Amino acid sequence: MAQNIYDNPEFFEGYAKLNRSVNGLDGAPEWLSLARMLPNMNGLHVVDLGCGYGWFCREAQRQGAQQVTGLDISTKMLNKAREMTTNDQGITYQQEDLEALQLPTAAYDLVYSSLTLHYVENLCALIKVVFHALKPGGNFVFSVEHPIYTAPKEPSWLMDRSGNKSWPVNNYQAEGRRVTNWLAEGVVKQHRLMATYLNLLVASGFVIVHVEEFGPTAEQILRNPALDEEKELPMLLLISARKP
Amino acid sequence: MAQNIYDNPEFFEGYAKLNRSVNGLDGAPEWLSLARMLPNMNGLHVVDLGCGYGWFCREAQRQGAQQVTGLDISTKMLNKAREMTTNDQGITYQQEDLEALQLPTAAYDLVYSSLTLHYVENLCALIKVVFHALKPGGNFVFSVEHPIYTAPKEPSWLMDRSGNKSWPVNNYQAEGRRVTNWLAEGVVKQHRLMATYLNLLVASGFVIVHVEEFGPTAEQILRNPALDEEKELPMLLLISARKP
Repeated sequence: MAQNIYDNPEFFEGYAKLNRSVNGLDGAPEWLSLARMLPNMNGLHVVDLGCGYGWFCREAQRQGAQQVTGLDISTKMLNKAREMTTNDQGITYQQEDLEALQLPTAAYDLVYSSLTLHYVENLCALIKVVFHALKPGGNFVFSVEHPIYTAPKEPSWLMDRSGNKSWPVNNYQAEGRRVTNWLAEGVVKQHRLMATYLNLLVASGFVIVHVEEFGPTAEQILRNPALDEEKELPMLLLISARKP
Repeated sequence: MAQNIYDNPEFFEGYAKLNRSVNGLDGAPEWLSLARMLPNMNGLHVVDLGCGYGWFCREAQRQGAQQVTGLDISTKMLNKAREMTTNDQGITYQQEDLEALQLPTAAYDLVYSSLTLHYVENLCALIKVVFHALKPGGNFVFSVEHPIYTAPKEPSWLMDRSGNKSWPVNNYQAEGRRVTNWLAEGVVKQHRLMATYLNLLVASGFVIVHVEEFGPTAEQILRNPALDEEKELPMLLLISARKP
């Protein structure tokens, strides 16, 4: 079973204060990019792997998705999602460990996942599950922490010789466990090559549709100057793939 | 017209001493990875964009390619390639600026390019030319300097807080011109996002087949300890794409 850091009270409390928790999708700078990679969700069967508070599930429902399922490993997240969802929205939230996920065959038009898959150890198995769960022509759209961001042993900014901020890339080729202190101590993530994400998709039968190494727009930086550093390196990788 | 740095005497002389110049494909650590991405070349029509000394053209011919064309912008490179090629090998070398390349329609089974496309400014146009030049089912296999490697304003190693070597990634989102001093001063390269390479291919109609962020094997490092630092970051990006 994957580490369930979201049920750690310290982590959960920190997470609750993030802009993306308070303001939902509009609080996530990459949302507009992800939204452009999504199909029209009207009438679709949609599943969200790592649904958190359920912001995306409610958005899918708002856009007319016919059936929406939100999966998460965290009891606290699912409770919060249920709290925030009104009864008539018809969204199903369900506790699942993505390391051992089973899904019905050819049941979904869209599998979505936001900032979750870098916690999953056996991504190869999960991608196969997603492929089988999609209908032909279905889409798999997800975001993860970017490999440039997850690679270093000590992920903190350095100054280069000109006094400019640089992100210290090392250990890139060594895939596997990275332990960081973000909101709580000892958060375990999986670093993998960008090539690995792409090749696992292709090996499972997916066609790569679009890749984005997210960087904030000038307007986003103006509204939120903290985003400025994301010009230096991509922190998020967004991928859209299609089952032929 | 792209900068023709290979005709700079200082650069050409330095280049002549590189292991990949002296020993050809076997002197290039990434060759085995690239070779695995290539189709069986027996009977194929092959073109090499940026053929240099012609090592790949001769290998294609050795593997039974029916027609091999090597293109390069550099007179010195082409002269050297012709010198090294015996008359009966039937390879055509031709001077071309890849910024303004024209190729016959549906004429090739394989378009190959090694460490050349990061010099090309209008890659979008070139990829379209390649797509039209390939027969349906044909392959485009190429290597470029990896975007992590080309991003920084000052591309030189830093020590992080633990005294480990780190590659300083900055300026990643700013695509375009990078000027480095490698073999000669003022070598102009084009930095672009990894996503850009992939999305340009997809937008032209290609299907992504395989991506490799090259890292040396333990055995390669044992034989050539200078390669050890390439565990820290990928310096080369290899992509194979297919015209459906």
